[in-house]
Formats: sequence, structure tokens, C-alpha cells
Amino acid sequence: MAAAKLDEFERIARFFAPLAAPEALELLDDVALIEGPPGQQYVLKTDAIVEGIHFFPNDPADQVAQKLLRVNLSDLAAKGAVPVGYLLTTSLPREREEEWLERFAAGLARDQAEFGIGLLGGDSVATVGPVTLSVAAIGRVGTGRAVLRSGAKPGDDIFVSGSLGDGALGLRVLQGDLAELSEADRAYLVDRYRLPRPRLTLGQRLAGIATAMMDISDGLVADLGHICTASRVGAVVQAAQLPLSDAAAAAIRATPALFAAALGGGDDYELLFTAPPASASALARLAEETGVAVTRIGSIVGEPPNVRVLDAKGEPMEVRSAGYRHF
Amino acid sequence: MAAAKLDEFERIARFFAPLAAPEALELLDDVALIEGPPGQQYVLKTDAIVEGIHFFPNDPADQVAQKLLRVNLSDLAAKGAVPVGYLLTTSLPREREEEWLERFAAGLARDQAEFGIGLLGGDSVATVGPVTLSVAAIGRVGTGRAVLRSGAKPGDDIFVSGSLGDGALGLRVLQGDLAELSEADRAYLVDRYRLPRPRLTLGQRLAGIATAMMDISDGLVADLGHICTASRVGAVVQAAQLPLSDAAAAAIRATPALFAAALGGGDDYELLFTAPPASASALARLAEETGVAVTRIGSIVGEPPNVRVLDAKGEPMEVRSAGYRHF
Repeated sequence: MAAAKLDEFERIARFFAPLAAPEALELLDDVALIEGPPGQQYVLKTDAIVEGIHFFPNDPADQVAQKLLRVNLSDLAAKGAVPVGYLLTTSLPREREEEWLERFAAGLARDQAEFGIGLLGGDSVATVGPVTLSVAAIGRVGTGRAVLRSGAKPGDDIFVSGSLGDGALGLRVLQGDLAELSEADRAYLVDRYRLPRPRLTLGQRLAGIATAMMDISDGLVADLGHICTASRVGAVVQAAQLPLSDAAAAAIRATPALFAAALGGGDDYELLFTAPPASASALARLAEETGVAVTRIGSIVGEPPNVRVLDAKGEPMEVRSAGYRHF
Repeated sequence: MAAAKLDEFERIARFFAPLAAPEALELLDDVALIEGPPGQQYVLKTDAIVEGIHFFPNDPADQVAQKLLRVNLSDLAAKGAVPVGYLLTTSLPREREEEWLERFAAGLARDQAEFGIGLLGGDSVATVGPVTLSVAAIGRVGTGRAVLRSGAKPGDDIFVSGSLGDGALGLRVLQGDLAELSEADRAYLVDRYRLPRPRLTLGQRLAGIATAMMDISDGLVADLGHICTASRVGAVVQAAQLPLSDAAAAAIRATPALFAAALGGGDDYELLFTAPPASASALARLAEETGVAVTRIGSIVGEPPNVRVLDAKGEPMEVRSAGYRHF
């Protein structure tokens, strides 16, 4: 019998969830929490990127290094953690030039300085396949202060940081699309694709305010679905409220179907979180103090796990992309 | 100018050592130590294995999983640490059968039970290249009790656990060599190649006795060289003292050149450590209590970092293999 192949999440549920330690929070949060020095917990997270899937062979090596670190730091930000350091595994073709590695190391150095972290160790292996880079990042958070995905309550508002869809549209630019945009808009989107901005300060300040949080890597709708599943709630998103950069807005004006990038394109690395309506003024203050936009995009409802997106007229929209899946 | 390519260790020294955090011990120990709960430190370690380099495409997937965990646990053992858990990154071809993954997960489950550890998280990515598997392992050790590579002193004896060369000879069997050996000997060697035995109990008991310790993965001479470099000492090894299994001894009787497997074949995953001569009786007791052989193979001397191997007549031997290097 030729069974349908399991997708990435089904594979995790079937093969890996049964192996999870209690500290792994049933693998629902994509991080583990272990006991740290008095009053603190360590947040552990691993994420890998593969050439040809997560970055292009001709992407500048320093920016590849920065993206590798930042996708992991973004997960720490989403728990409200302060980054400490990271382990690095590089799997490189033998013929890879040392110049590439030198530039890669320069990117790591730049972001180590920027985010106050250090390299804790690593492994280098040779491969006949594409470059594969894996980081295990470690952060710390006050005991019990980590914001999990499971705390969203009906009546909470849903917020995102920054703007949505830029990363996915930047990828389209690199694929040769969006020629109708200005040079500046295209450069902005490519930069957003290549260099995520982990919202560490905002994330740390949201501990104690947000009821549930994660970062958006698979796309808004897919990732909000993860919060709904973990919290056993539903979500209603007002599409018209989604924050768009000027460049993304220009792209969508020219080609309205590109709005899908904001809903489900992925590669946003913005914070997605829920908070009670009473937090509105605290959040406005936080946005001002951190210089990162915080936008309310919808509400948590009581229905079973499910994300509904409504258009400006209140009509349900169909959402095509449900996030990138590796299998 | 076509410069000679840097080897693996030169690459680490040039590109990664400058990035190391203080907790990474200058990358000399292949592990980092970070503050844990009161009185404890966490030991962090990452190691990756690649299909076609560290294991064969037709190796049983459960044993591949066990090897992946065990090469990391072996590093924790060499610091005297108790394993806690691990993060896992799998990079698999899309067409890889779920049956493989199921068997892989079964191997993880078996070793989790055997070693008392749990899965703390992970990432699964697809690749067009060979299977690449990476683990970041976490252990704990009493503060200041971790045995580093840097503590060897002139006059210390040099010891190894178990037997040497089995893993490298097992690899030769899988490559179709050593047909002259009995079926049982060949099966023993293959098992030693596929299933390292991390010497966790012995390693934990050696904290407080051993002055320097590491596990042998690149081969005795290369790894002893790492201890000499970190400790700024030299080493003299008596080749006739190297502990050999019956199977390895049989292989070397038939083909004396195979002795190189014991000196530098790698894939041993035995403990290599130094201790003052006064520890001899404590070590004999430890060997008896843990059921793991402990064999004195030489002495630490004061000369600059350098490993000399002497044959049974006291003549210097040439050592060809200096350990597997990826670049």
C-alpha cells in the first residue's frame, strides 16, 4: 500500500514527539527550558539552513552567517530570552573556497558583537551535498518568565512586530520577479530576506505582558495556527490590519495576489504574540521605546484550533500557503 | 598565488578560534562549560555525522542514530559529565523512506533509555545531498570538576580505556577487507565501528583522578597530540602496551601493517587520560568496578608538544595516519 507521505509536522509528531524530554515542552514551543543559575532558565533552540533552500549559492557568505544566527536568535527573542551563545555545525563541500569561510566568519563576528554572544563550540564536516549550516543557540530567561505558545486566551488581542511579507517578497526579487518595483524597494526587500532582525529587546520586554508568543518563520497563518493548537483556541485575523512596509505595499498594489506573502510567505522573523486588551497602552509605550512597530491584527476566540482571515468587508479569505514544509 | 589549502585544524584556528566565548575554553577542549544550577556546570558539545563519511548508506538506521548520540556522549564522558539531553538536526533527502526515519527514531529511543537522556528539540530540513545528522549534547558536572585537556603534567602516566583500533578495523571489514578473519571477529569489529561505547561511568569516576582527558575519535596519536598541545607537554607511547581486542590482535597478526589502526585509525571512542603514577591502585579498582579495562600506554614528558611512539625495542616508530581530517 502506497501511503501518502507524512509532512514535516506529522513526522515530528509521529517520530520525534514521543522522544521529547519534559524540558522540551512536548516540542510545542520549538525550544527547551532547562534549569540555570539561581532564578534563571536556559532556553535551547536549534535551527539549520540549507543552500538552495534557505539561501542562494551566491548570497554573500557574511550575510548567510548572520541569517543563520538570526533565525535562531529570533526564536530566543520570542521566548523573551537574552542570548548567551551558540554551537555551530558547518557541513561544506571540500572545494568551498577559504575566502567564503573567511567572509562567513566575518559575518559571525559582526553579529556576535551586535548581539553580545560568543561561539561555544562546533563541528566542521565535509559533504558532497549543498552547504548545510546548523546552530544550537542558548539564551537565558528568568525562571517561569519565558513566554510560551500555550498561553493565549479567548478575548486576547493578536499582535505582530515590524512588517509582514518583506522576506518572502525579497525572495521573489532574488528569483527575478517584481521588476516593476523601484530599485530601492527591491533592495529593501532583499535585505529583509537576507538579514532578519531578531526582536530581542521587544521580546524581553514582552515577558510579563504577552500571554503567548512565537516568531514568524513559516508564515503568519501557519505560525498563528501553532499558537492556536498549543493554546487550544481559535484566531480571527483582519487582513486589512496587517502591517506592510512601503515596498511590500507597492508590490501588492501592482499585483494584489502578492498579499499572500504577508499572510503566509514566511521568512518574516517578526514576533507574533497575544495579550489582553488591557495591555494596549503598555504595548504602545513599548513600541515607542524599542523603535519597533507593534500592530494589532486580530483576536483570539474560543473555537477549536483554527485561523480565520477576514477581508476589509469581513468576508472570509482563502489562504493558500500554509507555510514552507520540508517534506 | 595558489596557497595550500588549510586543513581542518588550521581552519578552526584561523576562522573560528577568534570567535570563541570564554566558556568555550579557547576551543581546545571541543566542549564549552556554562554555569548551571548551584554547584554545577553544563557541558555543551556538538558533533555531526555524514552519510558516506561517518556511516554507510546501508548501515541500519537505528545504529546510525545510536552512533550519532554516542559520539557526542563520548565527549561528555571525557569531561566526567552526566548526560542530560540533546538537540537534533536531521538533514534528509526528500525521497528518504519513512521506514528509515522510524527505525532511526527507534535507535534514539533505545539509547535515550540506556543513557537516561531526552530529546530537547530539533530541526528537520530537506537536502539534495547526503544524510547529515547533527547533535548538540548537554551534560552536567560539578563546578570545577570537568577534566580538561590542559592538565597533563610531566611524569603523569598515559592511559586508555577498552581497546584500540577496533572501530577502524570494523570500517575495513565493511569495505570488504579482512576476509582472513573469522566471522565472529569480523562481526565484533563491525559492531565496534557502528556502536561506540561511551565510557560514561568510568569518565565520571575519573573526575578528581585524571589530570587531562579526552575521547579518541581521530586516532590515538592525533588525539594525544591535542592533549600535549593544550597541556604544553610531550608524550611517549609504548606501542607494545596498546590494548588490543582478540579480533584486532588476530587482524594484526595476519597483516602487521594494520597496527596503524590502533595508533591512528580513529573511531575508537575510548577515553584517553593522564594521571600521576600514585593513582595506579585507584585506577585498577575503578577498572574492576566499572568492568572497563584501563591500560597504561606511556608517559607524559616535559618536551614541547609532540608524541613519540616507541616499539618493543625502544626504537621510534613512524606513525602514518594523523587522524581523519575533513579538509
